[in-house]
Amino acid sequence: MEKHIVVLPGDGIGPEVTKATKGVLETVAAQFGHSFTFETHDIGGSAIDNHGTPLPEDTVAACKKADGILLGAVGGPKWDNLPGHMRPEKGLLGIRKQLGLFANLRPVKGFDSLLHASPLKPEVVGGSDLLIVRELTGGLYFGEPRERRNNGQDVVDTLAYSRHEMERIVEQAFQSAQVRRNKLTSVDKANVLESSRMWREVVEEKKSDYPEVEVEHMLVDAAAMKLVTNPGYFDVIVTENMFGDILSDEASVLTGSLGMLPSASIRQDGLGLYEPVHGSAPDIAGEDKANPLATILSAAMMLRYSFNMNVEADEIESAVHAVLNEKYHTADLKIEGGTQVSGSELAKKVSEHM
Amino acid sequence: MEKHIVVLPGDGIGPEVTKATKGVLETVAAQFGHSFTFETHDIGGSAIDNHGTPLPEDTVAACKKADGILLGAVGGPKWDNLPGHMRPEKGLLGIRKQLGLFANLRPVKGFDSLLHASPLKPEVVGGSDLLIVRELTGGLYFGEPRERRNNGQDVVDTLAYSRHEMERIVEQAFQSAQVRRNKLTSVDKANVLESSRMWREVVEEKKSDYPEVEVEHMLVDAAAMKLVTNPGYFDVIVTENMFGDILSDEASVLTGSLGMLPSASIRQDGLGLYEPVHGSAPDIAGEDKANPLATILSAAMMLRYSFNMNVEADEIESAVHAVLNEKYHTADLKIEGGTQVSGSELAKKVSEHM
Ligand SMILES: CC(C)[C@H](C(=O)O)[C@@H](O)C(=O)O
Ligand SMILES: CC(C)[C@H](C(=O)O)[C@@H](O)C(=O)O
Repeated sequence: MEKHIVVLPGDGIGPEVTKATKGVLETVAAQFGHSFTFETHDIGGSAIDNHGTPLPEDTVAACKKADGILLGAVGGPKWDNLPGHMRPEKGLLGIRKQLGLFANLRPVKGFDSLLHASPLKPEVVGGSDLLIVRELTGGLYFGEPRERRNNGQDVVDTLAYSRHEMERIVEQAFQSAQVRRNKLTSVDKANVLESSRMWREVVEEKKSDYPEVEVEHMLVDAAAMKLVTNPGYFDVIVTENMFGDILSDEASVLTGSLGMLPSASIRQDGLGLYEPVHGSAPDIAGEDKANPLATILSAAMMLRYSFNMNVEADEIESAVHAVLNEKYHTADLKIEGGTQVSGSELAKKVSEHM
Repeated sequence: MEKHIVVLPGDGIGPEVTKATKGVLETVAAQFGHSFTFETHDIGGSAIDNHGTPLPEDTVAACKKADGILLGAVGGPKWDNLPGHMRPEKGLLGIRKQLGLFANLRPVKGFDSLLHASPLKPEVVGGSDLLIVRELTGGLYFGEPRERRNNGQDVVDTLAYSRHEMERIVEQAFQSAQVRRNKLTSVDKANVLESSRMWREVVEEKKSDYPEVEVEHMLVDAAAMKLVTNPGYFDVIVTENMFGDILSDEASVLTGSLGMLPSASIRQDGLGLYEPVHGSAPDIAGEDKANPLATILSAAMMLRYSFNMNVEADEIESAVHAVLNEKYHTADLKIEGGTQVSGSELAKKVSEHM
C-alpha cells in the first residue's frame, strides 16, 4: 500500500525521536512491500521561530491531505513567556480542532522490565493494562464564552458539548472495549454537572448496541482514587476532555514507563495524529539521548488505526518488547544488567528485530 | 470557653462516628474547663426521609448560629435513584454554599503504622505531609448557566469565578503555608483556561504579601502525576473547586490512611464544617465497626480553626497517634500484631489517652 505521512517534529527532542521513528517505518515498508512517503512541517515553538505562528497554514493543509501524522513534541522554556495565542501548545490544540481529531486514545501498559521504576508496589500495578479514551475537541477546552467580565472582576470558561460530540466518542470507546476485555468505565461528575448527566444518558442509550460490553459509571474523584489503588481494575475508560487530560496523565506515571507511552488522536474516517505522551525535554535535546520508543509505538498505533496494518503494528510492538527484553535502553531507563545506548542506536535495534 | 456545636450525623456510619467523636469532645471540655453544648440536625438522606429535603431550613438556621459544625457523612444506595435536587449530596453542596464555606482544607499525612497499606512504595510515600486548599463555593459547581439547550441537543456548564473569590482562597492558602513549611504550589490549567490565567495573576499579586512563602505554578495534569510520583514534594497546594475535588481524592489514597483523614470547610470569620474524608459506608452502618478516627481528627481541626484551641487540638491528635502506636484499630485497618476493637471502643481509647 502507498501511504503519505506528514511528520511534525516540533521542538526539543521532537526532531530526533521522529527521525528515529521514520527509520523504523522505512523498515516496515521495505519488509511488507509498502511505500511510505514523508513530508515534514513545522509546529509549535519551531513554527513560531520560522513563521511567527505555532500553526502555519501550510502545516494544516498538508495534514489534511495526509494518511497519517506523526508528531514529536512541542514547547520549551524559550517560548514560555509569549502571549497565549503565540504559545507552542496552541499549535497542538489548533491542529486537533481544525482536523476534528475528537478521540484521544492513551493506552497504559506496564513493561515487566520497567515495573521496578513504578511508584506503586508491584502487587498493585502488576498486570495493569488500560486504555483511556479522552474526548479531545470539546468541553472546557473550546467552549464559548471564555472571557473576563465586569472590568476584569469576573471570569468565565464554558464547558459545552453537543449530543453528537458525546455520541461519537462514546461509540469509539465501546468499539475499543470490544477489541479488548469488553469492560467500559464511563467517568463523569453527574452529581454536580449537567453535562455529565447528559453524558451518562448517552452512555446508557448506546450500551444496547454493544451488549457484550459491561458498562459502569464512575465519578471522576472516585476514578482518580481507583487509578492509584487498583489500576488493574480498568479496561477502557471514557471521559470528557478536561477529566481525560487529568486522568490520562495520572495514569501515565503508574507503570514507571512514561518514556514508553504512545498516543493517538483520531477521527471517524481514520485520519489520526500520533505522538508520544512525554514532552519535548529541551534539557537533553540534540544529544541523541532521548528514548524514541514512545514515538515508535505511536507509529505502530498509526499503522493500526489509520492504515489498518495490524500485522505490521504487531511486528513493531514485538520488536520493541524484544529490544527491552535484551535490556537495551536509553539513559532515562534504568534496567539492571542492561546496556545503555543512544536513541538512534535503540531505534536501529528495533528495526533489526523486525 | 463556651462553644455551641451543631452535629449533623447524616447517613450510614455518620451517626456512630459523630457520636463517638462527641464523647472525645466532652473529654476535652472536662479536661480543659470548657463548656461544649451540642444540637443535632438532619442532613442528606436522613433529612430526605424525615423532612422531604436533603437540607431542611432549620438545619441551615442552626448551623448559622453555631460556633462549629461536625458532619458525619451523607448518601447511600437508598437515595441513589432520586432526581438531582433530591439527592443527599445536594445537602452538602447547599450547606457549603449557604454558609459561604469557601475554603476546604484537606491535610494528607501518613501514619507510620499504616504506611504498609499504601499503594505506593514506602520510599515514594514515606514522609509525605501535604495540605490541599480547595476553593469550595465557586467554579463549575455553581456557575450559571448550567442547562440543556437547542431541544436537548446541547448542554453547558459554566466555570465562573470573581476576583474576590480567588483572592480569599489564595490568601487562606498563603496563611496555611506560613504555619507549615512555607511552600505553596498553585495548580491551574493556564495553558487552556481564561479563569486559570486570572487565578495565576491573583497568586502573583498576593505573593508580595507573604515574602517568606516560596510559590510556584503547576498545571493540573502535571500535579496529578507528581502527587503519585513524589507526594513528598508538596507542602500546600491551592486550586479551584473541580481540580481540588479530583486532586484531593487522588491524594487521599496515597498514604493508605483514607479512613484516618479529616477535612475542614471554613470561612473567614472562623465558622467551619468538619467532616471525615471517607464516605457513609452503608454496608457496615449500625454495627459499631466504623473507624471514628477521621471524625475525631476533624473535631481536632474544629478546635484549631473555629475555636482557636490549639493545645486542645494537639492533645486529640497526640492521643490518636498514641492509640495507633499501641496498635488498637478497627476492622478497616490491618496492623500487624494489633488489637481489633469496635469503633466506640477505639474512641474511648482516645479519650483515655488525654
Ligand atoms: C499542552 C496541553 C494543552 C495539552 C492538553 O491539555 O490537552 C496536553 O496536556 C495534552 O494532554 O496533550
Ligand atoms: C458529594 C460531592 C458533591 C462532593 C464534591 O464533589 O464536592 C464530594 O466529592 C466532596 O469532595 O466533598
